[in-house]
Amino acid sequence: MRLTHLDDKNRPQMVDASRKTPTERRATASGRITMSREAFDTIINERAQKGNVLQTAIIAAICGAKKTSELIPMCHTLILDHISCDIKEEEKSCSFRLFTNVKLSANTGAEMEALTGVSIGLLTIYDMIKAIDKTMVISDIRLESKEGGKSGYYERKT
Amino acid sequence: MRLTHLDDKNRPQMVDASRKTPTERRATASGRITMSREAFDTIINERAQKGNVLQTAIIAAICGAKKTSELIPMCHTLILDHISCDIKEEEKSCSFRLFTNVKLSANTGAEMEALTGVSIGLLTIYDMIKAIDKTMVISDIRLESKEGGKSGYYERKT
Amino acid sequence: MRLTHLDDKNRPQMVDASRKTPTERRATASGRITMSREAFDTIINERAQKGNVLQTAIIAAICGAKKTSELIPMCHTLILDHISCDIKEEEKSCSFRLFTNVKLSANTGAEMEALTGVSIGLLTIYDMIKAIDKTMVISDIRLESKEGGKSGYYERKT
Amino acid sequence: MRLTHLDDKNRPQMVDASRKTPTERRATASGRITMSREAFDTIINERAQKGNVLQTAIIAAICGAKKTSELIPMCHTLILDHISCDIKEEEKSCSFRLFTNVKLSANTGAEMEALTGVSIGLLTIYDMIKAIDKTMVISDIRLESKEGGKSGYYERKT
Amino acid sequence: MRLTHLDDKNRPQMVDASRKTPTERRATASGRITMSREAFDTIINERAQKGNVLQTAIIAAICGAKKTSELIPMCHTLILDHISCDIKEEEKSCSFRLFTNVKLSANTGAEMEALTGVSIGLLTIYDMIKAIDKTMVISDIRLESKEGGKSGYYERKT
Amino acid sequence: MRLTHLDDKNRPQMVDASRKTPTERRATASGRITMSREAFDTIINERAQKGNVLQTAIIAAICGAKKTSELIPMCHTLILDHISCDIKEEEKSCSFRLFTNVKLSANTGAEMEALTGVSIGLLTIYDMIKAIDKTMVISDIRLESKEGGKSGYYERKT
Repeated sequence: MRLTHLDDKNRPQMVDASRKTPTERRATASGRITMSREAFDTIINERAQKGNVLQTAIIAAICGAKKTSELIPMCHTLILDHISCDIKEEEKSCSFRLFTNVKLSANTGAEMEALTGVSIGLLTIYDMIKAIDKTMVISDIRLESKEGGKSGYYERKT
Repeated sequence: MRLTHLDDKNRPQMVDASRKTPTERRATASGRITMSREAFDTIINERAQKGNVLQTAIIAAICGAKKTSELIPMCHTLILDHISCDIKEEEKSCSFRLFTNVKLSANTGAEMEALTGVSIGLLTIYDMIKAIDKTMVISDIRLESKEGGKSGYYERKT
Repeated sequence: MRLTHLDDKNRPQMVDASRKTPTERRATASGRITMSREAFDTIINERAQKGNVLQTAIIAAICGAKKTSELIPMCHTLILDHISCDIKEEEKSCSFRLFTNVKLSANTGAEMEALTGVSIGLLTIYDMIKAIDKTMVISDIRLESKEGGKSGYYERKT
Repeated sequence: MRLTHLDDKNRPQMVDASRKTPTERRATASGRITMSREAFDTIINERAQKGNVLQTAIIAAICGAKKTSELIPMCHTLILDHISCDIKEEEKSCSFRLFTNVKLSANTGAEMEALTGVSIGLLTIYDMIKAIDKTMVISDIRLESKEGGKSGYYERKT
Repeated sequence: MRLTHLDDKNRPQMVDASRKTPTERRATASGRITMSREAFDTIINERAQKGNVLQTAIIAAICGAKKTSELIPMCHTLILDHISCDIKEEEKSCSFRLFTNVKLSANTGAEMEALTGVSIGLLTIYDMIKAIDKTMVISDIRLESKEGGKSGYYERKT
Repeated sequence: MRLTHLDDKNRPQMVDASRKTPTERRATASGRITMSREAFDTIINERAQKGNVLQTAIIAAICGAKKTSELIPMCHTLILDHISCDIKEEEKSCSFRLFTNVKLSANTGAEMEALTGVSIGLLTIYDMIKAIDKTMVISDIRLESKEGGKSGYYERKT
């Protein structure tokens, strides 16, 4: 199996996208942070008022998605047309699931932007809650769906 | 439970660390990326030669750890004295575990730097392998241990 | 009144520009820094020679305009085709007015780039002169004109 | 009057702070954004619910303060111990005043960090409201007070 | 001779590229680092195993090329379609030559991106070897060839 | 010969500086750009008036030095106390030599900061003059002297 990110001498390269045609693309990624009951309830209570923790996480996710090509060495710089986030609370498991959606028109996809947004957003929740619970775990960071580009539509089967 | 990252009007703030005394600190975080057998074997084979995928991930983790305060809105800028990484291959589960260790002398800890390094490193593996497998999952991002500071030594059980 | 930067759950979002058509756009913003007679004269004298303070401000404004999407959380990344600056001295009021002009072809406007350039340029003057006068005030940061896009031409009346 | 930011050949320089002793320092800056009644009321109504506009501005101000040395060419990189913000609503003038407070222990002051935080925060409000009112004006960006360092305590009169 | 980067008042400007037509462009730059026999042999020996020094340099060159418009004040932000590197060992002179190739479709060229990539890559080799030899010299940083744009094809003679 | 930037498994690492004592340090680096007579004269003439090209280069060098740890993967983040530059014109060879001096108090040296400043400054001259001469060559980037730290004083012999 040939690795696209290595050239013919096995040197890292930023893949050649110059022959691809720009198409409209979308990607959605998600991830989860699981915490103690006490930490979870603190966020839920705070959210009932102003929701600063989760909003800070969303803002960090949006800013993080824009910084992807600075963070992931072989990623192309991309001009995103849209970034939005959603957060689902799962009371039973004391966890939050963060979703990041991106849209763009380009010759390479934006899966990495969606995944990076999710990662930075979840780390931001961790940062703001770590004084209460340092055993939190971030998990299930994954691509939910993508659209556009040569490989076309993809949707994760749970 | 009072959130340290919100001020008395519930506004986000960068926590006041000015009264804390600088101490020597360490933090280790880890995380995992799980993939298809085919993707796993491709990395293993490539590693047997030059190991560019895993080395690129380590470099990205080190650079990512240095960028933490730009990514996580309420994080203090920190001067890290040392960053190193390790990668463990787990053949049974077709996964790689990435560890990031940081050392510094400061009045706030560097858990976030270790966790951010791990996250960026794992996203880099995802990026370089996604042409082979887009169902990969990043999980188990967590603090393994920390040392120094008011709360002292912490080591994760299991 | 619906806020475009909040989604249907009132969460911050980067506005969807994917359905807009790219057009040629321009924006000009301006701002002012007012200072003591002594500080003003120092810059004027220095400008008669090399003009380093005002030139440093112009360079900072240009670099600042390019960094807008990193600074303003919901701003799209934009590829600017042109950035230029102008400075007007107003002797009576001991103030300098900095203008930043940007041009681009995109599906969103660049008002924020022009305004950010102006702000960073004025802060740079403040920085270089603050040892002489720390009472300086930055004011009148505003959009002077814009062109292109759905809302078309706009020019500020005084 | 000698400009500290120019060397003996009138070349820009980052001032030599190596002989100064680190002391505890504080700085507070403020600035104002004035808008139409409609725009003002939109923010006030939104704030009654979640307050995303003003919170996004605060987060941007905090992140902007941390980026000061990247934006202002001759600024030293500084390690801030604390950043917090406050916002005052002035209904009569349809304006918001943003305050940024910073603390640090260093051999140079952090006035620029406080002023940059204010500027970026106000630009963020402008960005989120510009679809409603593009005549908004940012003004009165100024140092309110500082403490520590050779020049000691300073508080703005009026 | 008129300088394109200065406007009609001799103020620095980012050149107006808005009237240029986007074309496919390429640029290749190269540079050299010369060192002691001992330092050279250390890299060669290490390369025989894993090659971390040269690979880290290549990754830094690719990341550096992407950061060009942040580093060179009057450079346009560009979306690169492809970046690759090559390294030639010259045993006689104890030197390494680093090549950086970029491709893009834009209305301005990417010579600066190729040259910046080379510079950052060579500085990275310097950094990793400086404990062995601090007399190393970086030289011969130059444009090898370019293609596309108004001035068309250029290839360096010797 | 053991490479300090590789750990015991030959993985890249940021060298452990935690056991070193902070000392006052200085470093000076220099580099040269050589060009056609026409390009050289253009800069000299322009310098007689305002000197924007060389001043822009100095500002870029100072900003570049501050960004070193973002560019060179294994470099520690450092707080520089002072950065200054000098430029020498060599008419016979149609070249400019750029010097960058840095001072700091830290447990690692700042050679890389001085060398990176020089490189970015020279690239900035290249960028502003490339419309006149694209055969320019950047060379002789090297450490001139350093002071402080375990290895003590070093001065280059020619």
